[in-house]
Amino acid sequence: MKKHPPDEQHTDTEMLKVEVNLDDTPGEWLGYVMDKLFEAGANDVYYTPIYMKKNRPAVLLQLLCNKKQFDQLKEILLAETTTLGIRYYPLTVFRMERQTRIVQTKWGEISVKEGLQNGEVIKASPEYEDCRKIAEKYQIPLKDVYSEIWRLV
Amino acid sequence: MKKHPPDEQHTDTEMLKVEVNLDDTPGEWLGYVMDKLFEAGANDVYYTPIYMKKNRPAVLLQLLCNKKQFDQLKEILLAETTTLGIRYYPLTVFRMERQTRIVQTKWGEISVKEGLQNGEVIKASPEYEDCRKIAEKYQIPLKDVYSEIWRLV
Amino acid sequence: MKKHPPDEQHTDTEMLKVEVNLDDTPGEWLGYVMDKLFEAGANDVYYTPIYMKKNRPAVLLQLLCNKKQFDQLKEILLAETTTLGIRYYPLTVFRMERQTRIVQTKWGEISVKEGLQNGEVIKASPEYEDCRKIAEKYQIPLKDVYSEIWRLV
Amino acid sequence: MKKHPPDEQHTDTEMLKVEVNLDDTPGEWLGYVMDKLFEAGANDVYYTPIYMKKNRPAVLLQLLCNKKQFDQLKEILLAETTTLGIRYYPLTVFRMERQTRIVQTKWGEISVKEGLQNGEVIKASPEYEDCRKIAEKYQIPLKDVYSEIWRLV
Amino acid sequence: MKKHPPDEQHTDTEMLKVEVNLDDTPGEWLGYVMDKLFEAGANDVYYTPIYMKKNRPAVLLQLLCNKKQFDQLKEILLAETTTLGIRYYPLTVFRMERQTRIVQTKWGEISVKEGLQNGEVIKASPEYEDCRKIAEKYQIPLKDVYSEIWRLV
Amino acid sequence: MKKHPPDEQHTDTEMLKVEVNLDDTPGEWLGYVMDKLFEAGANDVYYTPIYMKKNRPAVLLQLLCNKKQFDQLKEILLAETTTLGIRYYPLTVFRMERQTRIVQTKWGEISVKEGLQNGEVIKASPEYEDCRKIAEKYQIPLKDVYSEIWRLV
Repeated sequence: MKKHPPDEQHTDTEMLKVEVNLDDTPGEWLGYVMDKLFEAGANDVYYTPIYMKKNRPAVLLQLLCNKKQFDQLKEILLAETTTLGIRYYPLTVFRMERQTRIVQTKWGEISVKEGLQNGEVIKASPEYEDCRKIAEKYQIPLKDVYSEIWRLV
Repeated sequence: MKKHPPDEQHTDTEMLKVEVNLDDTPGEWLGYVMDKLFEAGANDVYYTPIYMKKNRPAVLLQLLCNKKQFDQLKEILLAETTTLGIRYYPLTVFRMERQTRIVQTKWGEISVKEGLQNGEVIKASPEYEDCRKIAEKYQIPLKDVYSEIWRLV
Repeated sequence: MKKHPPDEQHTDTEMLKVEVNLDDTPGEWLGYVMDKLFEAGANDVYYTPIYMKKNRPAVLLQLLCNKKQFDQLKEILLAETTTLGIRYYPLTVFRMERQTRIVQTKWGEISVKEGLQNGEVIKASPEYEDCRKIAEKYQIPLKDVYSEIWRLV
Repeated sequence: MKKHPPDEQHTDTEMLKVEVNLDDTPGEWLGYVMDKLFEAGANDVYYTPIYMKKNRPAVLLQLLCNKKQFDQLKEILLAETTTLGIRYYPLTVFRMERQTRIVQTKWGEISVKEGLQNGEVIKASPEYEDCRKIAEKYQIPLKDVYSEIWRLV
Repeated sequence: MKKHPPDEQHTDTEMLKVEVNLDDTPGEWLGYVMDKLFEAGANDVYYTPIYMKKNRPAVLLQLLCNKKQFDQLKEILLAETTTLGIRYYPLTVFRMERQTRIVQTKWGEISVKEGLQNGEVIKASPEYEDCRKIAEKYQIPLKDVYSEIWRLV
Repeated sequence: MKKHPPDEQHTDTEMLKVEVNLDDTPGEWLGYVMDKLFEAGANDVYYTPIYMKKNRPAVLLQLLCNKKQFDQLKEILLAETTTLGIRYYPLTVFRMERQTRIVQTKWGEISVKEGLQNGEVIKASPEYEDCRKIAEKYQIPLKDVYSEIWRLV
């Protein structure tokens, strides 16, 4: 398999979606499970509310990962949730060319992730953690930090 | 307080909405809790998916009841869920004039609940349990039972 | 009751929230009902997914309106949905001082609704319909229209 | 590949499901994106509420399309949303035999889409747009238009 | 294909996920459909709230089944819902080694399903129906029945 | 107004529910807003997925607070979200008698919050943060920490 530098446009055919239905794991544990799965290298983890049999409000856990990570993430799911089964299927991921740019604001530097198409920047997302830290340090609304960056990019 | 016969149009000012947020009660128990609350006289019980702090998918339990039923329903919520607090507020309920009509179908009788306005029937709902029993007895789609009734009313 | 000019900061004590649980109205009708309720003057209408008894995925319709509009909106709910009952309770609404400003972009004028506190603009929302029309006329992403305005305000 | 007339029962093996998780695209834009995707030929587009990391309520956009449409729809997703990646996987679609029938009502003609199995009509859906127009023209509840058709089919 | 005894750890490559979007099937029917699909052998059935075009709150029905069951379940979906199309894709299911153990409580026997890894029990789920029956018979909270079992296993 | 010690059973009549509909605040900001509202003293904050006009997936923010906290929380909502209006209504909260007990486990001490009725403990919730820290320190599943406590209480 050819290896792509992570930032160039490419199509990744080595990804899996992994799913588990949970009707007897308390919500309290699920915040913890999400953190553990991210730490272990999941590309994304998210919850969807579902309705299961016998009037049970429940949760569908979905995660995206590289095939090579599956075994490790499976172990976490088995150890940390109540499920006895884990289902998965392959998917393809198209990823835009991307680059990180440092924007100088009046409060300091903020990273902005940019998406490029045909060499042109078509979208820009300020790094949330950078914005959050500035909002907290200067006691200003997070919204104002984002607004300032939108003015500058 | 004046008492209304249950089927006449009236405005009920003696109702409460009761709410509990649940992030550590497993979904499996919640189907059971719903049944218990209906048995004890709740007018309605329903679940809404919510997102609570620390990334917890959780459930908002809401129930509607008469003020006189509150104490009994509160006991069930305290006994059967993990909550330590229960919140509630009064609401007003407008109820249409309603009557039940028996419709004769090729498979037998089905009750239809009708809503009236100014003495005129403006809506008709076949009784779900009657339709379900016929669908199961005659091994026909539930949809076909409803269609037949819509043709007759 | 004192009348406020609509744009000044004020607290409105004449509002109601109206609610209906719907487990036998098809989703297809509900888009239509929403339009009718807005046309008749509802301040807001929105749907929440709920889980009702007997494993029924259902919908909670909520609307906000002035007390004077209640009767008319009630008629629509009774005529257009399958419900036989409508519940409601009063609420208070705090509304910020607001003003509309016209922003001149390279594609034409766009209205921007501004929220003020202590005489200072603290937030600005481009008018969606203005942005949509420009995006469609010039065949540019809606996102780019918003970005341009954020640069200008 | 053999081409099927669109109305005959067939199994389509050329379909894709395309997915994007969105935690920084405002809801306001997503109504617009849905319209653009339908205009460009998506078979279906729908949103699911999800919970992402860091306590973010977010939206999963899913769309169904023919493989040949993927490139065009991908361009719209990249241009109109904030995502940097798009995932997809093939699926198979079984489609019933279907036909359109014109039903004559007291208010005019309404198309009804019928589903057939073994040559027999087993379901019938009135065309929403036809029903909506009649409901608006004659100022009658949409529900009554559907009821009338159910009586006739 | 090699056949596994159902309780040993194994990876099942013969499963399908089947999906239907429903915007004109009333919620009332969907509880019934779920029961029918389970009776006919579906491994799991669950509903997810979705938002479809034209402001329609709708429901995504998903079911998991063995490929051999697909035809029978397809017939139920076509007969009992309003859909004209059914989509599906294969998935792989990893299943833990499991065993059932009978736990003796002060109220009688309760089955507990245990999940094993490397021969060691790493999770235990009391059988819901056993617990429910005891809770109802002895008029004790379901929560207390579970607590008692957690003390014993 | 009589003041209750916080741990005794009491009915609190000084609470408000505050609500905001958000269709143009990105999900990314909402995780931040939740933290700010908790820091400022909200009793609870939670998000519900809703569907608003023009096909917009949106979010209902709800918070519970004492009337005295309303002004401060209102300022945060106005500063950190895009809303121009905030609605609220009073509610009553019943709170069980509660006490905190320290449970000695093989890994160290864990607080358990207990709910009492007529002087008897009827429910017990281990403190999540205590359990999380032990799970991380000893690299054991969170589930096992809870199981151990359930065995001891």
